[in-house]
Amino acid sequence: MSRSGEFELIRRFLAPLATAPGAGGLEDDAALLDPPGEARLVVTTDSMVEGVHFPGGGPPGLIARRLLRTNLSDLAAMAARPEGYLLNLALPERIDDPWLEGFAAGLAADQEAFGLSLFGGDTVATPGALTLTVTAFGSAAAPVRRSGARPGDRVFVTGPVGDGCFGLKAVRGELEAPRLAERYWLPTPRFGAAEGATAAADISDGLIADLGHICRASGVGAVIELEAVPLSPEVAALGTQARLEALTGGDDYELVFAARESAAIPVGRIVAGGGVTVLDAAGEPVPLARQGYAHD
Amino acid sequence: MSRSGEFELIRRFLAPLATAPGAGGLEDDAALLDPPGEARLVVTTDSMVEGVHFPGGGPPGLIARRLLRTNLSDLAAMAARPEGYLLNLALPERIDDPWLEGFAAGLAADQEAFGLSLFGGDTVATPGALTLTVTAFGSAAAPVRRSGARPGDRVFVTGPVGDGCFGLKAVRGELEAPRLAERYWLPTPRFGAAEGATAAADISDGLIADLGHICRASGVGAVIELEAVPLSPEVAALGTQARLEALTGGDDYELVFAARESAAIPVGRIVAGGGVTVLDAAGEPVPLARQGYAHD
Repeated sequence: MSRSGEFELIRRFLAPLATAPGAGGLEDDAALLDPPGEARLVVTTDSMVEGVHFPGGGPPGLIARRLLRTNLSDLAAMAARPEGYLLNLALPERIDDPWLEGFAAGLAADQEAFGLSLFGGDTVATPGALTLTVTAFGSAAAPVRRSGARPGDRVFVTGPVGDGCFGLKAVRGELEAPRLAERYWLPTPRFGAAEGATAAADISDGLIADLGHICRASGVGAVIELEAVPLSPEVAALGTQARLEALTGGDDYELVFAARESAAIPVGRIVAGGGVTVLDAAGEPVPLARQGYAHD
Repeated sequence: MSRSGEFELIRRFLAPLATAPGAGGLEDDAALLDPPGEARLVVTTDSMVEGVHFPGGGPPGLIARRLLRTNLSDLAAMAARPEGYLLNLALPERIDDPWLEGFAAGLAADQEAFGLSLFGGDTVATPGALTLTVTAFGSAAAPVRRSGARPGDRVFVTGPVGDGCFGLKAVRGELEAPRLAERYWLPTPRFGAAEGATAAADISDGLIADLGHICRASGVGAVIELEAVPLSPEVAALGTQARLEALTGGDDYELVFAARESAAIPVGRIVAGGGVTVLDAAGEPVPLARQGYAHD
């Protein structure tokens, strides 16, 4: 096959990404993690399967960067700063060296952008679908969890909601919106935004669902003002139904969080009780067909 | 389908395994890792694909324990003690709740045996093969790497070599050896054995190949006395060819290490130069068909 063997693949494509001393040039059975000083060490992991979590045949550099950024977004939700990551690749036979070169170039670009090192990983062959796992490490002086929201907090988001699901339509050619396609492939982890929040999550399952996770973990409810939710112009132009879809579409990787105050965009408030209620401009509850993307 | 959705699956099968406070009951986007005091934090990760790294249709509890133990073996090779792990599951549709129940029971048994907590993970659907990733964390007061072997060190192994490859034959029904089949499914991580070693690795690619990794990383060579290499009686009974196969078969998960002294089994010595030479009882070099299992 036109792919380097495991050792050659590591030497050529992955070892150059392992810049941290603790990675030992990927020569060891395990990596050493440097302690983050006074901060807590935070770890998160996400797996992606081609054809399930991203469209088949996508550009390898963008697949790499999206994989990395969706994990970094989880660190940002914990109010952590990024340190490095492990990479597990299960590669079908069709993955060749040019693909791996593009994939590694994407990782290198985002390592540079976010100040990361590869720490280690594992590369295996699979008869099935391309399966990618990143485990990302960060440090947090004051980690934010999902369980600290209290009635009286306001609810904030860090950017437009719905770019993930409408971006996917753009990637699939179902919508003419090149900027949203780019937003799908290259979400921006919102480092710093959740600092000082009482509870935070990244929007991967949809605003309503992820805010629902915060509510359940915190034992509170939330009210969202539909008109306050920021939308990209391309999404706003699609009308009322799209506005509702944006609330329950996933893959935005903006943050939703509860806080007393923030420079981010206020969209609602935390209340006693449970669940998430969306109110229209007249203050009437909006019926939602579903709470979010119940992926598995 | 007869499988719980992602959230229900986490609640039912995985959350009970997340006993560490930092895991936050798997409610958060990320886990907090408790610092190991004066020790260094060590991390390792391995992926396994059904049909590639273990036989299809195997018992879920044994698959779980082997997955965990092969990772723990990497920690043992670094002279680390186990702390906990992340679990990434890519599940084909046929994986149902009884399978998951057996899998979780296997994890619970080995968490108890080795003093571990689940820290977090990710569960996704795949149209392809069952793909399992464990990322294991340990603490090491004096981590042992592959690069410290020096001429004059002796080479040790922690147990019989070849049980992995002949155990796989037993699992496949090609060899009548139930004890080896059990050794295949349940390798024993050799915690403590590598403490004080100058260099160590676990035998996953085969004794010769893994000792070769140590030699390359250390800039030395090694000589192995064929007659000194311990074999299980079932393997020894298969004759000379099997003895050579045992040296290059993988999946043993015993440790091979270089040290001045050890209570483990001496099998050779570190020398100047490079590469691994095997000597027979007459002191003549034994030609090896291959160095080890060049997996990918």
